Amino acid sequence: MPGAQVTPVTAHPRLALNQWTTRRWSLAEAIDGCVRHGVRGLGVWREKVAEIGIAEARRRIDDAGLAVTSLCRGGFFTAAGNAALAENRRAVDEAAALGAPLLVLVAGGLPAGSRDVTAARGRAQEVIAELVPYAASAGVRLALEPLHPMYCADRCVLSTLAQALEWAAPFDPSAVGVCVDTFHIWWDPTVLASIAAVAAAGRLATYQVCDFMLPIPADALLARGMMGDGVIDFAPMTAAVAASGYTGPVEVEIFNADVWAEDPDSVMTRMVSSFAEFVAPSL
Amino acid sequence: MPGAQVTPVTAHPRLALNQWTTRRWSLAEAIDGCVRHGVRGLGVWREKVAEIGIAEARRRIDDAGLAVTSLCRGGFFTAAGNAALAENRRAVDEAAALGAPLLVLVAGGLPAGSRDVTAARGRAQEVIAELVPYAASAGVRLALEPLHPMYCADRCVLSTLAQALEWAAPFDPSAVGVCVDTFHIWWDPTVLASIAAVAAAGRLATYQVCDFMLPIPADALLARGMMGDGVIDFAPMTAAVAASGYTGPVEVEIFNADVWAEDPDSVMTRMVSSFAEFVAPSL
Repeated sequence: MPGAQVTPVTAHPRLALNQWTTRRWSLAEAIDGCVRHGVRGLGVWREKVAEIGIAEARRRIDDAGLAVTSLCRGGFFTAAGNAALAENRRAVDEAAALGAPLLVLVAGGLPAGSRDVTAARGRAQEVIAELVPYAASAGVRLALEPLHPMYCADRCVLSTLAQALEWAAPFDPSAVGVCVDTFHIWWDPTVLASIAAVAAAGRLATYQVCDFMLPIPADALLARGMMGDGVIDFAPMTAAVAASGYTGPVEVEIFNADVWAEDPDSVMTRMVSSFAEFVAPSL
Repeated sequence: MPGAQVTPVTAHPRLALNQWTTRRWSLAEAIDGCVRHGVRGLGVWREKVAEIGIAEARRRIDDAGLAVTSLCRGGFFTAAGNAALAENRRAVDEAAALGAPLLVLVAGGLPAGSRDVTAARGRAQEVIAELVPYAASAGVRLALEPLHPMYCADRCVLSTLAQALEWAAPFDPSAVGVCVDTFHIWWDPTVLASIAAVAAAGRLATYQVCDFMLPIPADALLARGMMGDGVIDFAPMTAAVAASGYTGPVEVEIFNADVWAEDPDSVMTRMVSSFAEFVAPSL
């Protein structure tokens, strides 16, 4: 296997690869990579699934003995027009067909030409309310993901865990949970209490880890880094997640030009060892 | 006067220039620029004052009939060593000598090599507690400024108005207030309630306006823009400030490479008209 390396550290049983971390890999390559590196869970992306089709994707994942930990992603509810609901229903269908337990939702930013963040938030909540019954009947949990406030205008008007809890409140916890991602929330002075509140509400749907890199790159979306390479202390948030009783997978999701340029097998090796060093001790 | 232009819009009586907006100008030039454009308040920077000395700076400002609205800035409490307190006492002395009603404080980021944001926050609060009696006896109010969360690691571990209120709580409102700056807080889903809470606590020390520009530039500090050029809706926050009973100056503080490259007189003209269009109607 070209690029294959001996993994010096055994992969933690709860470590999951979010496949955008090894973006160059096809889904089939990511599945093989997980098997090779002992990683048992895989968060998949719709774009990658579409390359081979859902049935084939599910067969390969099942044959490899991997668990699908999430489907990325739905959302972008704030764009003008009515396309968002239909597109999100398709994403729910795909999640159900893949056996993904949850669909990660990114709310969307300000509509083109608008500065009305309050209206955009209201619109996102409206579309979520329309989507929830459809997702619930399909057995797919929606995971609201607050994104870092630097993305509020162009990507996601949902910015904190507390706000995500408010958005989720009208719905049953089995239908709407919250995605806790270290990159987006580490700065929040209430982050530990908010993680506890999310869990107490029965809504801690998934825990994602990656680091926050400085300086922020020209494409600010790519400021995510391997654990240990940036400024985040993973121990307190991970301990809060563990104390909350969450026992599910922990996905590593990294958008980073250097990581994407690296040999994906090397990324897997680093991911396994970084997870063991910075995340696992508090889990 | 080279570059002087006729200002088509009369400057709002509460509009103040933060002199970093016209960074190329010396303090003397900024004073002349304010007079020329009918701007009555000036937020001054220590670096610019130092070029001519405090006595001369004060004489020129007084002779021009301008009000000093703030001194920028103190803070950076989280750096290793004990230099921060002494440096901030000097900043307080300068504010008192200039007749500045308040000293703006930027808390500082993570100390070099540290990822412990909780410890950095604790350290900042400790130094503030040491500084308060000195500032109070000098008649200088300290204005805690929460900065956008994207600066949490490298610039300011104080990120929200709610957090600033917590930090200020042990001290008399006349001694410690909060700086409300649209750029840093516009994304906050609780921003309007937080502005009201800051004001209800008697701590709304100053209101600063500028826009949030996308994409975030390579130097993320320079993402500030002229009102109307970015994504911020100034009406709701300005209305909240007005409803709170704040009647003080409104400073325009812009860090932006394009604005700094522009003729400062042109910047002043745009500032006066942008303020009239986007801020004044809600004030």
